[in-house]
Amino acid sequence: MSVNTFGHILRFTTWGESHGPAIGAVVDGCPPGLEIDEALIQPFLDARRPGQSKFTTQRQEPDQVRILSGVFEAPDGVRRTTGTPISLMIENVDQRSKDYSDVAKAYRPGHADYAYDAKYGFRDYRGGGRSSARETASRVAAGAVARLVIDDVSILGYVSEIGGDTIDMANFDPAEIGRNPFFCPDAKAAARWEKIVDDARKSGSSVGAVVECVATNVPAGWGAPLYGKLDADLAAAMMGINAVKGVEIGDGFAAARLTGEQNADPMRPGEHGPDFLANHAGGIAGGISTGQPVTVRVAFKPTSSILTPQPTVTREGEATELFTKGRHDPCVGIRGVPVVEAMMALVLADHKLLHRGQCG
Amino acid sequence: MSVNTFGHILRFTTWGESHGPAIGAVVDGCPPGLEIDEALIQPFLDARRPGQSKFTTQRQEPDQVRILSGVFEAPDGVRRTTGTPISLMIENVDQRSKDYSDVAKAYRPGHADYAYDAKYGFRDYRGGGRSSARETASRVAAGAVARLVIDDVSILGYVSEIGGDTIDMANFDPAEIGRNPFFCPDAKAAARWEKIVDDARKSGSSVGAVVECVATNVPAGWGAPLYGKLDADLAAAMMGINAVKGVEIGDGFAAARLTGEQNADPMRPGEHGPDFLANHAGGIAGGISTGQPVTVRVAFKPTSSILTPQPTVTREGEATELFTKGRHDPCVGIRGVPVVEAMMALVLADHKLLHRGQCG
Amino acid sequence: MSVNTFGHILRFTTWGESHGPAIGAVVDGCPPGLEIDEALIQPFLDARRPGQSKFTTQRQEPDQVRILSGVFEAPDGVRRTTGTPISLMIENVDQRSKDYSDVAKAYRPGHADYAYDAKYGFRDYRGGGRSSARETASRVAAGAVARLVIDDVSILGYVSEIGGDTIDMANFDPAEIGRNPFFCPDAKAAARWEKIVDDARKSGSSVGAVVECVATNVPAGWGAPLYGKLDADLAAAMMGINAVKGVEIGDGFAAARLTGEQNADPMRPGEHGPDFLANHAGGIAGGISTGQPVTVRVAFKPTSSILTPQPTVTREGEATELFTKGRHDPCVGIRGVPVVEAMMALVLADHKLLHRGQCG
Amino acid sequence: MSVNTFGHILRFTTWGESHGPAIGAVVDGCPPGLEIDEALIQPFLDARRPGQSKFTTQRQEPDQVRILSGVFEAPDGVRRTTGTPISLMIENVDQRSKDYSDVAKAYRPGHADYAYDAKYGFRDYRGGGRSSARETASRVAAGAVARLVIDDVSILGYVSEIGGDTIDMANFDPAEIGRNPFFCPDAKAAARWEKIVDDARKSGSSVGAVVECVATNVPAGWGAPLYGKLDADLAAAMMGINAVKGVEIGDGFAAARLTGEQNADPMRPGEHGPDFLANHAGGIAGGISTGQPVTVRVAFKPTSSILTPQPTVTREGEATELFTKGRHDPCVGIRGVPVVEAMMALVLADHKLLHRGQCG
Repeated sequence: MSVNTFGHILRFTTWGESHGPAIGAVVDGCPPGLEIDEALIQPFLDARRPGQSKFTTQRQEPDQVRILSGVFEAPDGVRRTTGTPISLMIENVDQRSKDYSDVAKAYRPGHADYAYDAKYGFRDYRGGGRSSARETASRVAAGAVARLVIDDVSILGYVSEIGGDTIDMANFDPAEIGRNPFFCPDAKAAARWEKIVDDARKSGSSVGAVVECVATNVPAGWGAPLYGKLDADLAAAMMGINAVKGVEIGDGFAAARLTGEQNADPMRPGEHGPDFLANHAGGIAGGISTGQPVTVRVAFKPTSSILTPQPTVTREGEATELFTKGRHDPCVGIRGVPVVEAMMALVLADHKLLHRGQCG
Repeated sequence: MSVNTFGHILRFTTWGESHGPAIGAVVDGCPPGLEIDEALIQPFLDARRPGQSKFTTQRQEPDQVRILSGVFEAPDGVRRTTGTPISLMIENVDQRSKDYSDVAKAYRPGHADYAYDAKYGFRDYRGGGRSSARETASRVAAGAVARLVIDDVSILGYVSEIGGDTIDMANFDPAEIGRNPFFCPDAKAAARWEKIVDDARKSGSSVGAVVECVATNVPAGWGAPLYGKLDADLAAAMMGINAVKGVEIGDGFAAARLTGEQNADPMRPGEHGPDFLANHAGGIAGGISTGQPVTVRVAFKPTSSILTPQPTVTREGEATELFTKGRHDPCVGIRGVPVVEAMMALVLADHKLLHRGQCG
Repeated sequence: MSVNTFGHILRFTTWGESHGPAIGAVVDGCPPGLEIDEALIQPFLDARRPGQSKFTTQRQEPDQVRILSGVFEAPDGVRRTTGTPISLMIENVDQRSKDYSDVAKAYRPGHADYAYDAKYGFRDYRGGGRSSARETASRVAAGAVARLVIDDVSILGYVSEIGGDTIDMANFDPAEIGRNPFFCPDAKAAARWEKIVDDARKSGSSVGAVVECVATNVPAGWGAPLYGKLDADLAAAMMGINAVKGVEIGDGFAAARLTGEQNADPMRPGEHGPDFLANHAGGIAGGISTGQPVTVRVAFKPTSSILTPQPTVTREGEATELFTKGRHDPCVGIRGVPVVEAMMALVLADHKLLHRGQCG
Repeated sequence: MSVNTFGHILRFTTWGESHGPAIGAVVDGCPPGLEIDEALIQPFLDARRPGQSKFTTQRQEPDQVRILSGVFEAPDGVRRTTGTPISLMIENVDQRSKDYSDVAKAYRPGHADYAYDAKYGFRDYRGGGRSSARETASRVAAGAVARLVIDDVSILGYVSEIGGDTIDMANFDPAEIGRNPFFCPDAKAAARWEKIVDDARKSGSSVGAVVECVATNVPAGWGAPLYGKLDADLAAAMMGINAVKGVEIGDGFAAARLTGEQNADPMRPGEHGPDFLANHAGGIAGGISTGQPVTVRVAFKPTSSILTPQPTVTREGEATELFTKGRHDPCVGIRGVPVVEAMMALVLADHKLLHRGQCG
């Protein structure tokens, strides 16, 4: 059991390595009859695509998605999901034929190299193989399908902090997110981050980031307590993204410093269910959505690929030093935004169907 | 699908409500031949048991566990697991017959009341029903079984922060954890926390807490990438505990403020695999254990049950106010320690078997 | 992983051994709001209960079921399912304290004794332990819950053949099934079977049986192709019952002897979807229900417990002989009827919810 | 949830439609380090491949399999499984552009057309879409991977009956199976079947078949009681194959006509565990393998595609008649042999890993 499948009802399975011929996802359990087309998936892949600014890796991948199954022209002449598995494939194009003898022989600190060898006995070392962030393209494609299932829900992800420099919520402008290469909703912060990330890039260093994601218009009642809680599934979804080391729902760790009075989310009568006067809980209580915005914060560590040589060991257990020659993101959290959004969509869509199955 | 089961290979299913006749867990997939007895499970339940100091709820529950199946006297005369499901039952004893008409009619802010009603149409309102932290006793019992599977691994949980007041690592003494009612490894902090928690208790308020947990002697190679990563499973396990709002692995959110050089975990040759010179990663890379200590930090919000009346709505959607009359923990994070340890044990034991199944 | 759970959405987990303190089932994923009570479950257990005639084992078990969780008085004053796990427990009462030293030391041919030892290293040998047909009481209790989910569907099981003697469909009378101890719809066959089974009983021998089960009013559209096909799930459900060696859907093996013309199920316009002119397919096409009656046939081998000594080996691998001294059913297929019905109910209820989840 | 995944530990997910661009399977959980290559998979696909004799459909598909992931050159220079998902793809080549307007508008009796429409609202009607037996090529490819996991086990499938005409076990010669187009181990029966199948083909009719499959050298101890029993999993695996209506383990329905004495499988001391003096049980007791050959019999109905027009209804519910113009197998059971073998391999390999995970 290698658990390359995620989800309870809407399940997707990903496959593929960084430098293999292709990567892909099989999305199973999607309701039939949803309008779908490559053109509805591609924009999300484009948002994640590398090589679009100097602040991300220069690997050039068109990331063109192909739908190989599960879609057919419905009687109304529109291409729709049929209810059978949707196979999505993305060919790898820019597998630069570089010399991998260094990483074949020794373990890059901070990477999964040693862990994979310890587990499997050997590993596909080219570009990180299966543990490469390249695999997240498959998640983004699957997430685009999930969005079709929850078309009433809005999902907004953005970077709120890079290298310890945080946005000012007073400057928050959703329209700004698409205008800069950092998915940053604060134009002033974006300007500052240019220097931070560029300095890291030039010096062969890297910086961390925090990504936030908010889903609005999620109805109350989604979530499967006690071991498929909405927040627990979100935590797994986010912590499973490459380079993620922390996840918060609502106030997260800050809630641990509040009193019960400060942390309360009182209610008053509203038009559709209660109106909440605060949302410390991040839209989830007892593992079930409350109808408030579902909010999650995700910490990305700095990219482990840096130019400073690090002490490490070879496969044979001898001391050596390694640094990363290849192309890489100086701040891997930036391109994490479309991935965080995709995982949010996948968890929510799954729970919509899960809820419908049990509660009708 | 209501997902009251956790785990891939070593799976446990819990059942029961706060004020029903009993609660319990069925642990399935446990290897055969492990020595087991109620006496090996009871101490962990005793550590979580309420009513042992004035700092926790005064509900008096003996929490006596009974093993109903899956155990038999082996040819060597020792009671051992047989490989069949282990049914664990704990009777509820102190279901104080109080007046629940308030909570039957209206929703306590911060609790799961409204969410359960929105999902299921009605709810067992007595003491929180299924969403009560009482259910965590089942997890602790299941966790005690899991520990038998990973008897080489040591798991140490403790409270590192209450009400914003943190321990001083210079004072860290594991032996201290069992000497105070706070699972606190710093005697000086424990002394300060007495006042913090007692003040909260007396004023009918509540405070949050942070729990840390470290597992040592975990071999390299456990974890099932990409959607059963060890850290993702730990995140789900922890975020699913009542009142938890944040989870960190290793440096967590602090890693987002480091550079790649600061966050590196260099290696040098060691006796059994590499020796790591740091552990920012918390013992997990690429979702697989590295052989270093596995470290997790968990944020507990302040108990939502407080004496200050809060605006809320009734089931009929009318405005009202509620405060919590009943017994409760002024700091629910304290008794979270045995639960965090149990979930750590369950995830690790599951991944030990998962790894053995695939990689032999 | 020991897989003591069955079902995709409506899932039940059973636990318990023949001579342990109790057996039970946890039913998870049941929709909320269904009227439920021990009194709605007990009749199905009573139908399976041993010791009711001389044709079944004389073990006396009241098989009283207790609901321990998942049920609460709804606002309308009726006890209803809450959507949380339903824990069902049945105490073992008549664990006659007999001498088990024979079976502890050697393997009964035809029983699971050797296989359990080979798998687990040792076994609970008292009355067959976990492999005893006693466990099927848990399935029957779970099946009674499943029936609440599909209250529109009628399920009718009966014995169609004992010891090679088959019923005459010309005599088929559903009302007769409850009037004889054989669940036989043909009064004349029932009369003949008295002698067949009694002869087997008196001579310490045993006979096999075939059970048929028909579910009517199943709507078209249930079934999850390709690996959760309705017929595949039914096959697993039935083949997993103790002593079952064969399963047929519709015409089964007889279909292999028909031509395409003979086996066709032509259609004509009907009031609600097509009317089928035949039902060779047993109500399932492509793994999905067609709206016709779902029909299954199940072969039970003769009970392996017989008085004639059989050559076998001891745990130490030495030659010996064994015969079964204890109480047993001379024809285990008879009491298989309530179990087959329960599994039919569980599979259909599961697929109702599965369909609702994906297809709304 | 659409359940296009099979297996507990070694899991495969298939995707694709008869007339889409490709079909495929993702095999997850395969142990690392197994030698693998397209050349090791292709022979099994070739055995199932259509168009190789006049007795099977004339659709011309090269069925060339490509491995897209999960395989890498190991340090010893051999291509080996890495432990990550193995993506297998087979392009559809001969999707003859025929006129599908008939089947688009009306339901072919005996096919899944109506059931798919009832479930999903519409369907990919080209060549049966997802419900086409073409999908079984994916299973055969996945099964070839499974064989690598259980390389000690021998799996032998063959046709034992066509159109009611059975083989004579006295003539049984395994070498004969590959010499005739019927996978028939009895040369005389093969000669008779030529006429039976050819007559059916010429008259546009079809005939049914029975396939038998025997796995030898399966060690005792595989199987996961009680709901992952080896025989229950085999029953699901076989009943889920297109056109299958019945499954037997060991003596199957014949066992229901035996007495306990006749059905006994006595044991005597053997070199490696007991020697069994008979194998009525088909190598499985209590859901666990006994070390004897695992035997299964599978009934295939006659192909539903026949030239005789059948009454049916249109999507709009009006009466019409349909017959199948396209290419089809006059006896679909013949090409079922490689599929039955593949499913046997997949179930056994899964249970080998399952057993190793729990029992070490």
